[in-house]
Amino acid sequence: MPINPVALTADLIRCPSVTPAEGGALVLLEKLLTDGGFTCTRVDRGGIANLYARWGRQGANRTFGFNGHTDVVPIGNRDDWSVDPFGAEIKDGFMYGRGATDMKSGVAAFAAAAIDFVADTPPDGAIVLAITGDEEADALDGTTALLDWMATNNEAMTVCLVGEPTCPNEMGETMKIGRRGSLTAWFTVRGEQGHSAYPHRANNPLPAMARLVDRLSSHALDQGTDHFDPSTLAVVTIDTGNPATNVIPASCNATVNVRFNDAHSSQSIIDWFADEVALIKDTFGVDTDMKVKVSGESFVTPPGALSDLVAKAVKAETGRTPELSTSGGTSDARFVKDHCPVVEFGLVGKTMHQVDERVAVDQIGQLKSIYTRILRDYFA
Amino acid sequence: MPINPVALTADLIRCPSVTPAEGGALVLLEKLLTDGGFTCTRVDRGGIANLYARWGRQGANRTFGFNGHTDVVPIGNRDDWSVDPFGAEIKDGFMYGRGATDMKSGVAAFAAAAIDFVADTPPDGAIVLAITGDEEADALDGTTALLDWMATNNEAMTVCLVGEPTCPNEMGETMKIGRRGSLTAWFTVRGEQGHSAYPHRANNPLPAMARLVDRLSSHALDQGTDHFDPSTLAVVTIDTGNPATNVIPASCNATVNVRFNDAHSSQSIIDWFADEVALIKDTFGVDTDMKVKVSGESFVTPPGALSDLVAKAVKAETGRTPELSTSGGTSDARFVKDHCPVVEFGLVGKTMHQVDERVAVDQIGQLKSIYTRILRDYFA
Ligand SMILES: [Zn+2]
Ligand SMILES: [Zn+2]
Repeated sequence: MPINPVALTADLIRCPSVTPAEGGALVLLEKLLTDGGFTCTRVDRGGIANLYARWGRQGANRTFGFNGHTDVVPIGNRDDWSVDPFGAEIKDGFMYGRGATDMKSGVAAFAAAAIDFVADTPPDGAIVLAITGDEEADALDGTTALLDWMATNNEAMTVCLVGEPTCPNEMGETMKIGRRGSLTAWFTVRGEQGHSAYPHRANNPLPAMARLVDRLSSHALDQGTDHFDPSTLAVVTIDTGNPATNVIPASCNATVNVRFNDAHSSQSIIDWFADEVALIKDTFGVDTDMKVKVSGESFVTPPGALSDLVAKAVKAETGRTPELSTSGGTSDARFVKDHCPVVEFGLVGKTMHQVDERVAVDQIGQLKSIYTRILRDYFA
Repeated sequence: MPINPVALTADLIRCPSVTPAEGGALVLLEKLLTDGGFTCTRVDRGGIANLYARWGRQGANRTFGFNGHTDVVPIGNRDDWSVDPFGAEIKDGFMYGRGATDMKSGVAAFAAAAIDFVADTPPDGAIVLAITGDEEADALDGTTALLDWMATNNEAMTVCLVGEPTCPNEMGETMKIGRRGSLTAWFTVRGEQGHSAYPHRANNPLPAMARLVDRLSSHALDQGTDHFDPSTLAVVTIDTGNPATNVIPASCNATVNVRFNDAHSSQSIIDWFADEVALIKDTFGVDTDMKVKVSGESFVTPPGALSDLVAKAVKAETGRTPELSTSGGTSDARFVKDHCPVVEFGLVGKTMHQVDERVAVDQIGQLKSIYTRILRDYFA
């Protein structure tokens, strides 16, 4: 009796696993996978629940890995939803609920595909499912904890597929072979307070900040690379908080977010910032503090065996040849790429993180078929 | 029996005339001036008390005018004062209290000078005191109300001396023959909100604002004119208020304060702003709202008979020849200049608007002597 991925998605949606709560989702999967012949280990760390499941021998020649998460973002204002956000209600071909697309349907599809596949045609190799309860929040003790534990325990994946939604509008149109890196920088320009009528007795930080922001946002980081769109810089806020029109303020803050491709590293961006800050000091005589948080480096799994495998399965099941994209925000693929080649493919993510998040019911079955075909071709 | 300007200053300080409250100050002056032979009229408007006092004939050939205010700025935090802010306490040669320098001592000095002068040597002409209770706040119903009433009632001054403190450090070093104009502009750049990862799908207002601010603050308005320092522009705040590093905001605000000399008018500054806003629209495709408040146009009473008269008296009483300055913030001279030639001279204003505001007691007597000599020379 094959696993119904639609019913499994519904069961998972009914687990209120708002990040970082486990909510019953991993417990449910652990039981299902254990019944399916998988060896399961809970790899909890820092209060976060994670599940590692392997079918087949440790240290097998070929191990196909799936990665995904069962935690979901908060529902926001309950009254804005037209349905119960944890009800998994089906209307007009769509299943509604928080996590419907991001990514309980993806986890259900690969769990169902893996369990049925090993039952039908036990492969010469192993299949690993690394499922975390901490992707949407800090992701400090999620997939990272699973990978750390795997390294310590001689567990490995030969290749990995992350089941995040990757298609903007139509099923099958896009897969991801990498992601841009992301960093955020907070700048504080420190001048000297004074009276608006006597600017020469003060040192206004605002002209210096304006010049800094203008220079940063005018600069073209690159024109794009083989697998990436051009890197982008977005100034997201500039704030002073001075209510007095006759006072020159002492300092000013700005925040800048950079999405960078493989022409850069976080360090090369930081070095560039430091040069610009030095130039502003030379020009305006102000000091600038800079704090940087790196969310992830850019990475790419160059087109090859793994992307071909996935693209061929998508084409066979949907009729579409997926575009190999590196756009979008970060995902846990940024951790997995240090372990093995990794690509991402999942269904249409249009409503992720939104009110009335929903998934086309037939896409769940289609996704299971794609994942099944990937496993079959991989172990053929 | 001559009027003691020190005792009169103390009496005025004890009137809690925190703007716009009359606090008893004008009532006290009205009684004193009436007793001294002045015809007094309360020219109240919009809840503001003002006092007009004339000695001598209406329509006299020569009328010398004094202008000043009895309202004071708030005391701030009472605990920061080492004395009662309305106590007029004298310590080590200084009298303490809100308004001690700005400008109850000035009003006391010219009232005492005028009363004693007309009693000792009745002049061939008239003396007018136009004293307002609304200089420190909006100044909408203060000296303006007095001048409006004067125009309606055929009252006039041939020349006018404003008794504001004008000396930065030493008694007698500076008088003012004009002021720069002042205006404040509020800019709002309106773009289009979006996600930091996809800046091309949004239209970030911040780079446009940075360019606008950089251009405005880099531009030299002029190099100074005959009687004025260079005009200045101070950006006083830039604010966005976007806490989300993954969101490009929809709009951004900035405030700019301009102090301009007689090479400009408020309209020429506004026209320049409009040109810059149009350029930013061409470059960035964003709309910018602009709101402007003009606090005053620049003006100057060119050096001549009136400034010579005052300078000569200051030199005689203090040994110093005052510099003819046009620096500093606005004063009610900006209204009086439309009525007659006007200059400003008063004592050292170092502690004005501060905690423990205080005046050197001997400067009050000195100021009365200077004003008396000015009257004597004017009517000689
Ligand atoms: Zn996700
Ligand atoms: Zn004043």
